[in-house]
Amino acid sequence: MTKPRVPDRRSPAKPSRPHKRAHPLKNDSDTQWKTALTCIEPNKILMRGYPLDEIMGRLTFGESIYLLLMGEVPSPSIGSLMEAILVSFIDHGVTPPSTLAARNTATTGAPLRACVAAGVLGFGRHHGGDIESCMQFLDTGLELVRKGSSYRHAAETIVLSCLEASEPIPGFGHRFHTRDPRAARLFQMALELEIEGGHIQMIRAVELVAAALPDGHAQPVNIDGAIAAVCGDIGIPAEIANALFIISRVPGIAAQAQEERQREHPMRTIDPKAHLYDGAGQRRIPDKRR
Amino acid sequence: MTKPRVPDRRSPAKPSRPHKRAHPLKNDSDTQWKTALTCIEPNKILMRGYPLDEIMGRLTFGESIYLLLMGEVPSPSIGSLMEAILVSFIDHGVTPPSTLAARNTATTGAPLRACVAAGVLGFGRHHGGDIESCMQFLDTGLELVRKGSSYRHAAETIVLSCLEASEPIPGFGHRFHTRDPRAARLFQMALELEIEGGHIQMIRAVELVAAALPDGHAQPVNIDGAIAAVCGDIGIPAEIANALFIISRVPGIAAQAQEERQREHPMRTIDPKAHLYDGAGQRRIPDKRR
Amino acid sequence: MTKPRVPDRRSPAKPSRPHKRAHPLKNDSDTQWKTALTCIEPNKILMRGYPLDEIMGRLTFGESIYLLLMGEVPSPSIGSLMEAILVSFIDHGVTPPSTLAARNTATTGAPLRACVAAGVLGFGRHHGGDIESCMQFLDTGLELVRKGSSYRHAAETIVLSCLEASEPIPGFGHRFHTRDPRAARLFQMALELEIEGGHIQMIRAVELVAAALPDGHAQPVNIDGAIAAVCGDIGIPAEIANALFIISRVPGIAAQAQEERQREHPMRTIDPKAHLYDGAGQRRIPDKRR
Amino acid sequence: MTKPRVPDRRSPAKPSRPHKRAHPLKNDSDTQWKTALTCIEPNKILMRGYPLDEIMGRLTFGESIYLLLMGEVPSPSIGSLMEAILVSFIDHGVTPPSTLAARNTATTGAPLRACVAAGVLGFGRHHGGDIESCMQFLDTGLELVRKGSSYRHAAETIVLSCLEASEPIPGFGHRFHTRDPRAARLFQMALELEIEGGHIQMIRAVELVAAALPDGHAQPVNIDGAIAAVCGDIGIPAEIANALFIISRVPGIAAQAQEERQREHPMRTIDPKAHLYDGAGQRRIPDKRR
Repeated sequence: MTKPRVPDRRSPAKPSRPHKRAHPLKNDSDTQWKTALTCIEPNKILMRGYPLDEIMGRLTFGESIYLLLMGEVPSPSIGSLMEAILVSFIDHGVTPPSTLAARNTATTGAPLRACVAAGVLGFGRHHGGDIESCMQFLDTGLELVRKGSSYRHAAETIVLSCLEASEPIPGFGHRFHTRDPRAARLFQMALELEIEGGHIQMIRAVELVAAALPDGHAQPVNIDGAIAAVCGDIGIPAEIANALFIISRVPGIAAQAQEERQREHPMRTIDPKAHLYDGAGQRRIPDKRR
Repeated sequence: MTKPRVPDRRSPAKPSRPHKRAHPLKNDSDTQWKTALTCIEPNKILMRGYPLDEIMGRLTFGESIYLLLMGEVPSPSIGSLMEAILVSFIDHGVTPPSTLAARNTATTGAPLRACVAAGVLGFGRHHGGDIESCMQFLDTGLELVRKGSSYRHAAETIVLSCLEASEPIPGFGHRFHTRDPRAARLFQMALELEIEGGHIQMIRAVELVAAALPDGHAQPVNIDGAIAAVCGDIGIPAEIANALFIISRVPGIAAQAQEERQREHPMRTIDPKAHLYDGAGQRRIPDKRR
Repeated sequence: MTKPRVPDRRSPAKPSRPHKRAHPLKNDSDTQWKTALTCIEPNKILMRGYPLDEIMGRLTFGESIYLLLMGEVPSPSIGSLMEAILVSFIDHGVTPPSTLAARNTATTGAPLRACVAAGVLGFGRHHGGDIESCMQFLDTGLELVRKGSSYRHAAETIVLSCLEASEPIPGFGHRFHTRDPRAARLFQMALELEIEGGHIQMIRAVELVAAALPDGHAQPVNIDGAIAAVCGDIGIPAEIANALFIISRVPGIAAQAQEERQREHPMRTIDPKAHLYDGAGQRRIPDKRR
Repeated sequence: MTKPRVPDRRSPAKPSRPHKRAHPLKNDSDTQWKTALTCIEPNKILMRGYPLDEIMGRLTFGESIYLLLMGEVPSPSIGSLMEAILVSFIDHGVTPPSTLAARNTATTGAPLRACVAAGVLGFGRHHGGDIESCMQFLDTGLELVRKGSSYRHAAETIVLSCLEASEPIPGFGHRFHTRDPRAARLFQMALELEIEGGHIQMIRAVELVAAALPDGHAQPVNIDGAIAAVCGDIGIPAEIANALFIISRVPGIAAQAQEERQREHPMRTIDPKAHLYDGAGQRRIPDKRR
C-alpha cells in the first residue's frame, strides 16, 4: 500500500506524486506552471477574476480575503462571520510569545517588517496553529454522529480518547481565560446568521461534556476551537483556517512593534510581567454601529 | 545643537533621549512599562477600550485595524477608504520578489507562517516601503503651498528637485503598469467621500507635471503614491501607513504560498516567467454589491 | 499508557510534563529558570565555563560551535570532522529555493539580516531538515544488527521497508548529483580519523543495497545522509545535527544575498535558470595546506 | 551632480545606475546573470574555484567563510583572526533582545529554523549592525592622519564631533561590560600576528581620548569596535564585516533556542531577569590547546 512519507497536500482529485527530494527531479522549469489567484496584465489586475479596482469600495478587506483564499465572493452571512473571525484574533496584549518576539526585535531598531516577520514565526503548534487538530477532533465526532450516535455520546467518546491519551482537548482551555468572550460571541453570531451546523453542534456538545468532568477544571472552548468549528460549518478547510490566524494577528503584531518603538528606548530589557495598561478606559461601540 | 544619531521616534512632546547602545543603560526592567493597545483581564479583552466581543459583528476587520492602529473608531468615510486601501495591495500575482521568496520557502515544505514571514521581509525600501519618502515629498510641496505657491508651481518645484538629483519621483512609475487602476480608484473614492485634501491635490498636480515631462516617459501615479496621499489627507502618519502595506499583502502572500504547496511538487525550481493564469475569467462584482 | 501529544523533547531523565496550551499554565514567571550555556558577568563571558577571550585564538570557530552545542571541547579528530561537516554544506550555488528566497529578499533592498532570515526559513523537511528521518532509519538498521543481523541483511530490510511504503531512502539521492563528492570525502575523513562506527557502516551497507536495486536508478548517499551517519558515530544527537545545517549554510546565504545586492539592480526578476558562473576557474588548495 | 537616492552598493568600478522602482525596468530576465561564488556541475561543487571536497579537511569552517566572502584563501594570520572574530560574538547569554526573540519563538513550538530566523532579525542598527558607522568613524580619523595629523589629534577631533552632535562614539560602550574582554583579546592577537595597522591604531587612540573625558564615564572599546578596526586592517569591507556578526551569532541563537525547547515547557512567559546560570563552572582550555 502506498504511504507517501510527505503528506499529500494536493486536492484529492490529483494523483499522489511520490517525488521526494531524495529522488532526482526532472528539470521542470521548462514547463509552464499555473496560478489561479491573480491575473496581472498591463493596467489590469484581476483577483480571482474580479478587477481589483472594482472590488475596492464594494467588498471589504475581510470579504476580499475570503474571495482570495476561497475563490468566490462570500454570502453576506459568511462575510459577517469572516469579519468577526478576523477581528477576534487581532491582538491579545503584550504577553503572547509571538508578540514578545516582535517587541524584542523592535527594540533592536529593526524595521517594522522584520518585527512582523519575527512575530509571525511564533504561530505554530501551540499557538493558534492547532486548528487542524481541532477540526479533525470535531470531524471524528461527526463521523460517529453520521453513523447514528447522538451528539452527546459522540462528544463523550472523543473526549474520553483525549483523556485516555493524557492529551488536552483541542480547542479547549486557555492560559488566561476561564470563559473566552470571543468564542461565545462567535457562536452567538453563527446562531443569529443561521450558519450553525454540525461542527458547532459538536463543539457545544464537547463543551458540556468538558464542563462535567469530575476534576472540576473549567475547560472553556477557546477562540481556536470556536474558529475551527465555525470554519468547519462554513466550509473553510483547515489549511485556510490556519492562514486566518496569521492574517488576523498581523495588525496586532504591527501595532505592538510600533508602540514599542515609539514609547520605549532602544535595546531595553523587556519584562513581560512589568507592564501596565494606560490606554482608553472601557467604552462601548457607538449606537449608530449597532 | 543636539542631533541625536538615532532618529527620535517618540512623539514631539516627549524630550529627546540620547541614550544609545553605546552608553550603559541603567537597569530599566524594574520600572513598569506601559501599553495603550489592548487590556487583557480574565475573561475580558479590551482593544483600545472596546470589548473585543462587542467589536465582533459591529466593526469590520478593516475598521478594527484602523481602531487598533489609530486609537479611535473611524468615521464611515474613513472606514470605507481604509477598506479600499487594504484591498488595493492585497496581491499582485506571482512575480513580486516578496511573493517569490514566499513560494520558494513553500516549496521546501516549510509551514505557512514561515512562508508568510519570508514574504513579509521583502517589504522594504523599493517595494511598498517608500511611503515615508512619498509623504515627505508631498509635505515639501504643501509647505510651498502654505507659503503662497500654487499647487502647480509647488509641484513643478518638487519634481524639478527630483530630476536634478537624478532621483525618481516618489509614488510614481511602476515596473509593469502605465496606468495603475488601483490609484485611480482610490482617488475617485476619496473624491466621492469628500475626503480629498491637500495631499491628494498635490499628488494630482505632480501627476500633471510628470505627464508633461519632455522625455515622454509615462509616469503614472502608483498605488504607493495614492496610498501616501490618501493617508496624508485622512491623518494616518507614515509609519502606520507602512504597516498598512504589510497588513494588506499578508493574505496575498498566504494564498500564494498555499497554492504553491497544493498544486506543485516540493523542491521545484520556480521560474517566475514560466507561469500561466488558469483561474476565473474576468467577471463583475454582483449588482447587489454595487 | 501516557502518550503526550506534544513530543517530549526533554532528556529522558526528566519526568514528562503534559502541560499543553489548552491547560491553564500556572504563572511560572516567578520561578528562576536556568541556562547552562553562557554565563555573563561584568567583564566576563564564560561559554560553557570557558572564558570567551581564552577560547579566542585557541579554539577555531568550528570547535567552538561544537563546544557550545555539546558542552565540551571536542577531541582533535572530532574537531576535524566538525570543520568538514560545517564546510560541506556552506553553499550550493544559486538554485536552492532557500538561496532564491534570500536573493529575492535582497533585490527588494532589504538588509542582510532579513535576507539571511528569509533563506534560513527554507531549511525544512525537504531541504537539509531530514536528518532525524535519516538517523532513525540508520538506528532501525543498527537495532537489527544488535539483535544479530548482518549489516547487509539489516540494510536490505530497512531499504525494503522504504520501497514497500513508496518512500525514498532517507539520506540518498540528490536533485542534481549522481555521486555527491561531499559525502565521499566525509566518509574518507571518518575512516582516516578512525571515527567510523556503526552508523557509517550501516549507511555504506545501504549504499550497496541501493546501488543493486533493479530499477537501475543511481541512488547515491547524499550529504544529509553522510552528515547523519557521521553525527551518529560521533555522538551528536539529531536536533543538534539539524542545527549544523543551518549554521553551515548561513555564510552561503549571506554571500549570495550580498552578491545579489552588489552586482544586480534592485527589484529584478530572478530567473534561476538564466545564470552563468563567472568566478574563479577550478584551482587547487595550495600545497602548504595539504 | 548625480546623487542617487539609493546608496550605490556596487563596486566603484561600475557606473551608477539610478534605475529605481519608480522607473519601469526593462525586462531583464532574458539576460544571463552572473554569479562568482559557487559553481555547481554534476558531481562537482567549486566554491570560489576550489572543489568543496578538497576544502573539507584542509580549510577550517572559519577559513572557508573568509574564502567564500572574500574570494581567496586567507593567510594563516588572517585565518587566525577570522576564527577569533567569529568566536568572539558566538553568544552573549539569554538577555540580548535577539536571543529573547528566538526563545519566545521556541516556546511556541516553532522549529529551530524559525527560532534562528527570528533571532537573526534582531541584528540591526543598535545591535551588532553598527559596523559601518564605526568603520566610517575610523576612516574619518585616518583621513586626517593621512593629511598630517597625529593619531592623537585625529582621535580628539573625531571624538569631539560625536560629543558635539550628542552622539555616542561608535564602537565604544556596552550595556553591560566596562571592559570588554573580547575586544582586548582581539587587539592582543592582532598585535601578536603583526596585523595591527591604521584602524587599530586609530581606535586605540580614540580609547585613550575617551578614557580621559571629563565626565568620568568609562567608555571601553566594545567588540563591535574591535571587529570594525581589525576588519579595517585586514581589508574586510563593512558589508562583509556585517555578515560576520550574523554568521558568528547563529550558533548561539540555535543553542539558546534548543535549550529553551529541551528544558522548559511550551508557551511559558520568559522573564529575562529571572534566570540563573547552572552550567559548567569556570575552567581553562586544556594546555595541549595553548
